[in-house]
Amino acid sequence: MRIAAIVEYCGASFYGWQYQEGSRTVQGEVERAVSFVANETVRVITAGRTDTGVHASAQVIHFDTRAERSQYSWFRGVNAQLPDDIKLRWIDVVDDEFHARFSATGRWYRYVILNRQSAPALLYRRVTHEYRDLDATLMQHGASFLLGRHDFSSYRTVHCQAKSPVREIRKLDVIRQGEFIHIIVYADAFLHHMVRNIAGVLMAIGTGEQPPEWAREVLEMRDRTRGGVTAPADGLYLTRIEYPEHFNIPQLPPGTGLW
Amino acid sequence: MRIAAIVEYCGASFYGWQYQEGSRTVQGEVERAVSFVANETVRVITAGRTDTGVHASAQVIHFDTRAERSQYSWFRGVNAQLPDDIKLRWIDVVDDEFHARFSATGRWYRYVILNRQSAPALLYRRVTHEYRDLDATLMQHGASFLLGRHDFSSYRTVHCQAKSPVREIRKLDVIRQGEFIHIIVYADAFLHHMVRNIAGVLMAIGTGEQPPEWAREVLEMRDRTRGGVTAPADGLYLTRIEYPEHFNIPQLPPGTGLW
Repeated sequence: MRIAAIVEYCGASFYGWQYQEGSRTVQGEVERAVSFVANETVRVITAGRTDTGVHASAQVIHFDTRAERSQYSWFRGVNAQLPDDIKLRWIDVVDDEFHARFSATGRWYRYVILNRQSAPALLYRRVTHEYRDLDATLMQHGASFLLGRHDFSSYRTVHCQAKSPVREIRKLDVIRQGEFIHIIVYADAFLHHMVRNIAGVLMAIGTGEQPPEWAREVLEMRDRTRGGVTAPADGLYLTRIEYPEHFNIPQLPPGTGLW
Repeated sequence: MRIAAIVEYCGASFYGWQYQEGSRTVQGEVERAVSFVANETVRVITAGRTDTGVHASAQVIHFDTRAERSQYSWFRGVNAQLPDDIKLRWIDVVDDEFHARFSATGRWYRYVILNRQSAPALLYRRVTHEYRDLDATLMQHGASFLLGRHDFSSYRTVHCQAKSPVREIRKLDVIRQGEFIHIIVYADAFLHHMVRNIAGVLMAIGTGEQPPEWAREVLEMRDRTRGGVTAPADGLYLTRIEYPEHFNIPQLPPGTGLW
């Protein structure tokens, strides 16, 4: 039986998603909790592995098990076993054809910047802090050059394992809300560090260090070593994974106005 | 010279505001940071002492010092000395007549409830969780009975030290925003646990356990032992202190859409 779930976690105290012996990882905690409820060892597949410090309001996972439990028992049981900084928002049996990673048709991330003089105390490690004024209009102008299907070699880490550097950005919005700047990005899939590298380039444009056209120049170089600074993990949220409708993975309401 | 400041803190890792030998308190950390920058021992006065776990987006403090520093030096210096979960949002020299507590003419608190099935992972210890559906309209109806000048004996802890139990609630709004319920309350001043006891009564009304009129019945009993459950500290934020305009304490923009 295949089961899917939507998971929220605060990445601040994790060494990322992927299981590592001896480190606190989201995968490690989720597998421990699910295995406890299933009463057998369960391996969990995720839609997208997040790095150290990166958050998710709606990560999607799936796993296979022989355990038979009601939806309520899975939900309550796994949540009771999970630590306070990981919670399931939804869980249910899905079609055996469903695959959290390979069935995904689109992914949404949000990068949240607190743009004010003083660093965040209430949202420490949950947002990126920039004390210099950011001009969201300039940032949006820069963002416009990245829309569409491109070779994003300049926007991935040199350690990225993906075979192709081509991705399609379907939406890239920069929105100011009071002291916050939100970068909302939707693509078919992402390269390693792609959102943080886009955020780094857009922030340099927002402060006026670089003109908006620089986003395109970096893109066209297809050379990571000539790209911008990778923005910190703190402000990055995986917010939504899209699947074909027939899999019945629910679209949950946004967790907060923040992410 | 008298100096005032606006302070943001996440109460999750503090034993409240008030200094206690051997415990991590907000006052202890602020006094340590200010004393370091002033290069002398400084005692800090607050507009309102918050309990263990209670947050502030805009607490106001003042202190007296012989140290002469530029506004920039105070701001940067103290913030550099403060831990990550406390930050100054503003600091400046004020009139010697200004007193953070006694000059205050009004106080605003916000109580934030996440109202959904699963507990908050991203906002763990930053909001109160209620999995039962809360009806904000019923809560607002109950809240209406508390508006105005009343004897709030039923809404303060039996340990409250205030001489008079009479307070004036000038505004008490219950607002639903997606999965969140915000209780926004503005009064001349508050009794000990008053907002958490109001939140407890309104939550019992919101779940349907009690009718809206129960808020008035509890009020009229003037007896804490017959009141409702004290709601958890996690969701409580001190968001604004009002002073006469001539003191020039700025009204900062709200930190987030959340608090």
